[in-house]
Amino acid sequence: MTKFENISRLSLNQITTERWNLQEAVDGCIRNNVPSIAIWRHKVKDLGLSACKKIVRDSGIQVSSLCRGGMFPAATAIERKERIEDNLRAIDEAVELGTNVLVLVCGPASDKDIVEARKQVEEGIQEILPYAKSAGVKLGIEPLHPMYAAERSVIVTLGQANSMVEKINNDHLGVIVDVYHVWWDPQLYEQINRAKGRILGFHVSDWTVPTTDLLMSRGMMGDGVIELRRIRDAVDQTGYDGPIEVEIFNREIWDMQGDDVLALMKERYLEHC
Amino acid sequence: MTKFENISRLSLNQITTERWNLQEAVDGCIRNNVPSIAIWRHKVKDLGLSACKKIVRDSGIQVSSLCRGGMFPAATAIERKERIEDNLRAIDEAVELGTNVLVLVCGPASDKDIVEARKQVEEGIQEILPYAKSAGVKLGIEPLHPMYAAERSVIVTLGQANSMVEKINNDHLGVIVDVYHVWWDPQLYEQINRAKGRILGFHVSDWTVPTTDLLMSRGMMGDGVIELRRIRDAVDQTGYDGPIEVEIFNREIWDMQGDDVLALMKERYLEHC
Repeated sequence: MTKFENISRLSLNQITTERWNLQEAVDGCIRNNVPSIAIWRHKVKDLGLSACKKIVRDSGIQVSSLCRGGMFPAATAIERKERIEDNLRAIDEAVELGTNVLVLVCGPASDKDIVEARKQVEEGIQEILPYAKSAGVKLGIEPLHPMYAAERSVIVTLGQANSMVEKINNDHLGVIVDVYHVWWDPQLYEQINRAKGRILGFHVSDWTVPTTDLLMSRGMMGDGVIELRRIRDAVDQTGYDGPIEVEIFNREIWDMQGDDVLALMKERYLEHC
Repeated sequence: MTKFENISRLSLNQITTERWNLQEAVDGCIRNNVPSIAIWRHKVKDLGLSACKKIVRDSGIQVSSLCRGGMFPAATAIERKERIEDNLRAIDEAVELGTNVLVLVCGPASDKDIVEARKQVEEGIQEILPYAKSAGVKLGIEPLHPMYAAERSVIVTLGQANSMVEKINNDHLGVIVDVYHVWWDPQLYEQINRAKGRILGFHVSDWTVPTTDLLMSRGMMGDGVIELRRIRDAVDQTGYDGPIEVEIFNREIWDMQGDDVLALMKERYLEHC
């Protein structure tokens, strides 16, 4: 397992510096030599799309992905149609911001029928794929940790995401591997290997113990129990050589000065990823 | 999917009435016509094994299982040996309390190497199986929800438990299906079917939304998003006709009067299971 010698693949997922707006986050990356950023749509909304487009262009920063499309299941056909429309707008925003990856957080079920919700996810992806392809944007299904199955995503394992990607079989559809969501999976390494050629993004953070919160217990790399380099090595062995996003929801990190977060992130990335 | 007409398969998992000691819990079950109870070892320790044995015998209640053995992985051989010894004592206690099922919560890794920890679990089970068999006690591997992978169990899916049971292939080894731990699994129904003839227990509760806590967010059946009857039906279709334990960690339920919990549990069992 090889250690990185530089941060050429490092990307700041914007949620890690949650208090910064996009201008501040981009400036922070430039100041700290972080070559890429992953952008969240609610942050784009804060400053406006055209302003954000200018911020990105003027800075010369790479945009590793836009987060997020998805949220397909809904109780009625009208609502599902609205979700589709929102995904098409997300694809437009990805184009404007200069990234070719839209991360899909696929959404929870609208009732107790999780099997039906999974069908609605598949149908939703099928529906937006032609538009994504014509826009040159790839859709990355991000399986979330099973503890989010009721509230955020009925897609909960890399195996399940792989099966959907293979079934739909479109060169603009792939998967996002986030260590926090998949580290526990007994099939992890075989499913990473199975995703060969379809991995559109790789996200790192850590799983802290004791785990006190479902959302805010992610830690900085090295502060938890995840075998980061082993997983990164498996992902790299599939041929993936794209950006590695640091995506951390953590109140203490959010309360730190942004530049301190970036310095710590760079150090830990080199030490643990 | 058939509805139950009586509570003949209902068992109170003792943790659901956490404030009751074993005497109170058994008395409560008898008073409320609940035919079975699942006993926790820390509750046995509170009153002493021989007193608990007498309480159970005098009452005539059935004991659906003893919770829990397991916790196999440890940093050193000496510690792992201590865990084995503790499991042998748990088997003894199961015999004394008149149950033939010991639930295994297999334990977390002692370091970051979850793959190695899983080997240690398998070795631990292999080591205690001859003793269990000679005592007439069956060992039920309970896969826990992946959110407990770092702190309670490296066995996190029914598929993983099934693979281990098939590999070891001993008629005194099987699986425990707990809806709270497995409801999210895309392979749920195929893995329940695969467990045919090896299911040693079935636990019910519910997954409440919004999910505010990793441990204490279990709800009473009907208060959450789990398709209970669909899962129960799948378990029954394997031929399982044993006890159905209600196992709920929930502060509000723990703060209720025990008899009120049992009344509600009976009502919800008939309505949702």
